[in-house]
Amino acid sequence: MPGQHCTKGIQKNINSSTPAALFTTSPPTAVELQPLMAQLDLSSSKDKSQEDGKKDVKNPNLQKAKNCFLKGVSYFSGDMEVFGKLMEKQFFLLQLLDWVLRGAAQVMFVNNPLSGLIIFAGLILQNYWWALNGFVGTLFATISALILQQSRGAIAAGLYGYNGILVGLLMAVFSKEGDWYWWLLLPNIFMSMMCPIVSSALASINSRWDLPVFTLPFNILVCLHMVATGHYNNHFPQVLIQPRSELPNITWAEIDLAKLFMSVPVGIGQVYGCDNPWTGGIFIISLFISSPITCAHAVLGSAVGMVSGLALAAPFGDIYFGLWGYNCVLACIAIGGMFYALTWQVHLLAITCAFFCAYLGSAIANIMSTFGLPACTWPFCLSALTFLLLTTGTNRIFKLPLAKVTYPEKNLVYFWKMKKQEKNEKAEKEKSEREEKQRAIVDEVILNEKEQLRLELEKEEGSEALDGEIYELRVEDGAPSEEHHAAEGKQIKHTNGDPADYV
Amino acid sequence: MPGQHCTKGIQKNINSSTPAALFTTSPPTAVELQPLMAQLDLSSSKDKSQEDGKKDVKNPNLQKAKNCFLKGVSYFSGDMEVFGKLMEKQFFLLQLLDWVLRGAAQVMFVNNPLSGLIIFAGLILQNYWWALNGFVGTLFATISALILQQSRGAIAAGLYGYNGILVGLLMAVFSKEGDWYWWLLLPNIFMSMMCPIVSSALASINSRWDLPVFTLPFNILVCLHMVATGHYNNHFPQVLIQPRSELPNITWAEIDLAKLFMSVPVGIGQVYGCDNPWTGGIFIISLFISSPITCAHAVLGSAVGMVSGLALAAPFGDIYFGLWGYNCVLACIAIGGMFYALTWQVHLLAITCAFFCAYLGSAIANIMSTFGLPACTWPFCLSALTFLLLTTGTNRIFKLPLAKVTYPEKNLVYFWKMKKQEKNEKAEKEKSEREEKQRAIVDEVILNEKEQLRLELEKEEGSEALDGEIYELRVEDGAPSEEHHAAEGKQIKHTNGDPADYV
Amino acid sequence: MPGQHCTKGIQKNINSSTPAALFTTSPPTAVELQPLMAQLDLSSSKDKSQEDGKKDVKNPNLQKAKNCFLKGVSYFSGDMEVFGKLMEKQFFLLQLLDWVLRGAAQVMFVNNPLSGLIIFAGLILQNYWWALNGFVGTLFATISALILQQSRGAIAAGLYGYNGILVGLLMAVFSKEGDWYWWLLLPNIFMSMMCPIVSSALASINSRWDLPVFTLPFNILVCLHMVATGHYNNHFPQVLIQPRSELPNITWAEIDLAKLFMSVPVGIGQVYGCDNPWTGGIFIISLFISSPITCAHAVLGSAVGMVSGLALAAPFGDIYFGLWGYNCVLACIAIGGMFYALTWQVHLLAITCAFFCAYLGSAIANIMSTFGLPACTWPFCLSALTFLLLTTGTNRIFKLPLAKVTYPEKNLVYFWKMKKQEKNEKAEKEKSEREEKQRAIVDEVILNEKEQLRLELEKEEGSEALDGEIYELRVEDGAPSEEHHAAEGKQIKHTNGDPADYV
Repeated sequence: MPGQHCTKGIQKNINSSTPAALFTTSPPTAVELQPLMAQLDLSSSKDKSQEDGKKDVKNPNLQKAKNCFLKGVSYFSGDMEVFGKLMEKQFFLLQLLDWVLRGAAQVMFVNNPLSGLIIFAGLILQNYWWALNGFVGTLFATISALILQQSRGAIAAGLYGYNGILVGLLMAVFSKEGDWYWWLLLPNIFMSMMCPIVSSALASINSRWDLPVFTLPFNILVCLHMVATGHYNNHFPQVLIQPRSELPNITWAEIDLAKLFMSVPVGIGQVYGCDNPWTGGIFIISLFISSPITCAHAVLGSAVGMVSGLALAAPFGDIYFGLWGYNCVLACIAIGGMFYALTWQVHLLAITCAFFCAYLGSAIANIMSTFGLPACTWPFCLSALTFLLLTTGTNRIFKLPLAKVTYPEKNLVYFWKMKKQEKNEKAEKEKSEREEKQRAIVDEVILNEKEQLRLELEKEEGSEALDGEIYELRVEDGAPSEEHHAAEGKQIKHTNGDPADYV
Repeated sequence: MPGQHCTKGIQKNINSSTPAALFTTSPPTAVELQPLMAQLDLSSSKDKSQEDGKKDVKNPNLQKAKNCFLKGVSYFSGDMEVFGKLMEKQFFLLQLLDWVLRGAAQVMFVNNPLSGLIIFAGLILQNYWWALNGFVGTLFATISALILQQSRGAIAAGLYGYNGILVGLLMAVFSKEGDWYWWLLLPNIFMSMMCPIVSSALASINSRWDLPVFTLPFNILVCLHMVATGHYNNHFPQVLIQPRSELPNITWAEIDLAKLFMSVPVGIGQVYGCDNPWTGGIFIISLFISSPITCAHAVLGSAVGMVSGLALAAPFGDIYFGLWGYNCVLACIAIGGMFYALTWQVHLLAITCAFFCAYLGSAIANIMSTFGLPACTWPFCLSALTFLLLTTGTNRIFKLPLAKVTYPEKNLVYFWKMKKQEKNEKAEKEKSEREEKQRAIVDEVILNEKEQLRLELEKEEGSEALDGEIYELRVEDGAPSEEHHAAEGKQIKHTNGDPADYV
Repeated sequence: MPGQHCTKGIQKNINSSTPAALFTTSPPTAVELQPLMAQLDLSSSKDKSQEDGKKDVKNPNLQKAKNCFLKGVSYFSGDMEVFGKLMEKQFFLLQLLDWVLRGAAQVMFVNNPLSGLIIFAGLILQNYWWALNGFVGTLFATISALILQQSRGAIAAGLYGYNGILVGLLMAVFSKEGDWYWWLLLPNIFMSMMCPIVSSALASINSRWDLPVFTLPFNILVCLHMVATGHYNNHFPQVLIQPRSELPNITWAEIDLAKLFMSVPVGIGQVYGCDNPWTGGIFIISLFISSPITCAHAVLGSAVGMVSGLALAAPFGDIYFGLWGYNCVLACIAIGGMFYALTWQVHLLAITCAFFCAYLGSAIANIMSTFGLPACTWPFCLSALTFLLLTTGTNRIFKLPLAKVTYPEKNLVYFWKMKKQEKNEKAEKEKSEREEKQRAIVDEVILNEKEQLRLELEKEEGSEALDGEIYELRVEDGAPSEEHHAAEGKQIKHTNGDPADYV
């Protein structure tokens, strides 16, 4: 369903060799995974490429074409490193555009300008005014980070832009004045420019535990703006949000399965505040381009959120509207391969986190509604941070150092490499220990032989006259060793004097 | 009053030699204190065992019987270390039962399976359904900790169970559906299993300041469940809690002194959400078995809470119901000997903390009621953490390292030992310094003598011819010292050459 | 305007040589700045003292008089270090009074007993009862810190008193019972005495990031007292504060410019909860005495708050009442020169922080009103902490180590000194590197010469007989170097043996 729509927004960016099959929401297969794992030794990816492997042998031409195709894919999947390096030498405004697009995609932890472009296409499909506000937010957040001389690498990865796009979008979404209320751009720009300050401050705290700041700056700043102005404000009024005060009327017979199914893409769309299922579908595609694992966990998270909503007797309207999904989407992506290396245990942890996040989402929404506030992505931030702070005794749940986090596939490669290296080191250590032992034995044998020779010589010394030959043996033997020279000195002296003095 | 009741629940566990006097709520006397301080040198406990000491001298038989009795007491008081070690070799389910019982008692900082058993007896007396929920909570929290491979020592001490029992109990207490609503076990199990995750995450943060997590995971998870579902929910509705909106009608003439007195055990019972004074009495006994200091501070804390309630003009109903007591009970136990070594200063600090906690309890209850939530044990957690973060210049307020915390009596022994060791070290240091000085003087004298001898020899050298005797003295003197051999070399050379060259 | 009033309160403390001109609210000129920068090299303050410089040359007598005057000023401006040292030898009660006065001024980051005295004068002008409560609060907070054996230096600087004065004042301000309700002194004393405990606990946390605790203890404790008792309380009722529930009626035609202008001093007065513009004016003077930079930023912050209030469509009454100003005053002082060294970039940052603080103030006021609470100085604390946690790549935004913070002028001196020292060190390093290189070249030359000499000698050795002269050269050359003696040994031996053996 979303596959047929997405081509609109991205057709100009993708080279013609890419088949349509790439744009389905099918679970990640080895075809797309391999280019992202190019650095990986074949042995570890063998089990995944089993089927492909069989075909490969049959047809060398197909193999060649496939390699070509994979190389093509690698240029615009993952974090588009090659493209990023290319941009470094470009005109500043082009660079800035790259950063803004990456910032737009970083909301979903995707560092990919193509995904960012597709996401903007989805936003435009939803609402022009919102898309404009989102763009302004990203742009000014990035500019503010440049002014404050934040880390250039982080800016280039879009890490200062993603809070900006959310601030811009959500301030437009929750404004009671509706679309094209131009004054809104003023607080939008102010709040976007505050993003890097709040980000930097939070990073100072979170870095003590090697934790990311997630979308906390966005949550803080949007809640700040909304509650500072409120529903009853002459300049910037907000939509009215009130706590529930009566039993919702839920009749299970009334459930609409089509809408329930649609709530999965809608939940993904709600990460950017969009309720259009097509927009959600476009977002799924943009995720799939960069990282199929991310995409799979996004869909899974949205489904978990929907199920949780049903379990906790939420009004069907809220579930259809995707309000139960978006936090779980983000939490499931973050835990499922992004900040932990993906193993089966981590996959289960990600699902647990999504359930916990849904629960937390309901709780926070109820609390925030007392102040006329939406839940924003507080539930995601708090649940993901909780699960990232978890310490366990098992080495199957491996939290990546924050500096090493890229995208799930590359994280996996890092994890496997590290494991392999550990194994090698262990093996090498054992080997060197074994060798050490052998050498020690050999050394002992030699030492014994020398000692015997010396004893024999000494015996001869007693009976025979001293000659140069023996002396030379001594010098050869003892000279390189420093601690022997004092003794040597004595010996040397004695050789000139009375041999009988020799102890 | 509680003394006559408690024997019901625990009579099967206590060996017959234990006299009934043990089960009174009298303040801790030296009789019960001593077995817990067996490792202590007698000098420091002299002032406490003054009276006993006099009797001891009079009757050697009584002394022997008393020793026997004390040894018996030591087996089931304190943290029952011997029993814990015995259980390590047992069948897994028995071990799990031990952990669950310890978990139940750990709510009150008591690591004692017998206390846990008595507490479960008290819960059963209060309400079967609540007791079941508490048991399920403790069990699944412990199982979840095992799955997540948390520290086995902490699990065995019940440190992953106590949040579970509170989650289970309080979810049952605050459910509007009443008893035997079996569906409640589902969120109960889910939330209990989340306990170790939240505990572990909070411990990652708190450990930076060497602080415990207290009952924070319980507070977070129960509030989460209650506010996520709320009063108006079809599946899991909660009891209605609303903020006060009018002046309570307080006439001091109406005060019921009996109920006011009863509020002290009720306050202790409210730690587990129980309003039955008998249950509270049973809990007092369970505390007394493990640690009389803990028991005394629990009663003291509850009384302080009651007084604070009267001072702040709380409705009498709340005070009678123990709502002003339970946080103060926990805060007073935590500060009074558990995490600080008990001195008079710390005792006063514990009472101050209890007053502060009561104030905070009222504040948090008012804030939480806005969201339809009870205060849980937030006031205790926040006040105790504040008082544990306190740094002072006096060494009479000594915060134990978290890893050394056991129970107040053993903590005291640790504190006294440390003090004594410090004293000894200081004395030893002074002694060694004195000796060092003496040795230095002796060395100097010897050196001077040698120097004189040498000078004399040198004088002789100048006037007499060189003979082997003097040379040998030289070698004996200088050879072992490495830095002299260069000079030695010169000397050696010179002895062969012209003695006049000697510098 | 405030100038004519303030003399009442302080006339007894200032020596008669101080001209009335000092007590105007004019922007900081070099006259007052210079004594605070006495240690500064003249080159860096040249641009500031340009005008004065011209006059100085003209009249040597004036110059002398000015120096005298500046020295006089230095005795009671800044942190009055000389006075503080003088007090150390005084009677304890006098010392305590000094600490209490400094504590009163420390609310505005001013460590100056004279400022404190003027502030008390302003408070008495506002309300006798409030002033009394403030004094009791400061006194008991300081006494409590002494009992808890906190750092004597911090107590003497008033750092344990400023939360006390705010607790005392604001508890009186928000009490519904009105003035002279003597029972209020009980919770006042209790809460004041809790201040050092909460301060110490918060400092344990904040010190990890080298952050001050600001007025957080006051915020926590006053909110605690107010929400614990609430509006509906028989003993300690609070004034009723409710959230806004309808659109405020704002007609721009109704704006009163005089009141708007007055809101600037009123905003400064509101730091202590005072709405009297004269009181605000007196506070401005007290700031000016100690530090003109602080004073300027206070006025600037209050103005920024007023503008923000207009921008966010706040009811005019709130703006006139100074509710938009006081947080911005504190935030602007804290960032503008107090915890950062004042540069143009920091000045802009301070203004940004003031705007952010105003926004945050509105947000927090709306949230707190749900619980019947005022905003206190939470907005200031949170915004200032955020801006102090900021990390940037530029060295023009320099955060002073917490231990080095005094007052803006002295901070600047520290910053400039550090800069100069860095420069000198760099220059010296470069110089020493250059010298090192030259020395290396010289050494090489010498070494080459020696080597040549040696080679020549060796040649001679081969052809001529060995004589003492050469040998002595050897010993002089090689003896001091330890690593050569082994070779030396060999050499020595060889010189005695066969010269042909020499390798």
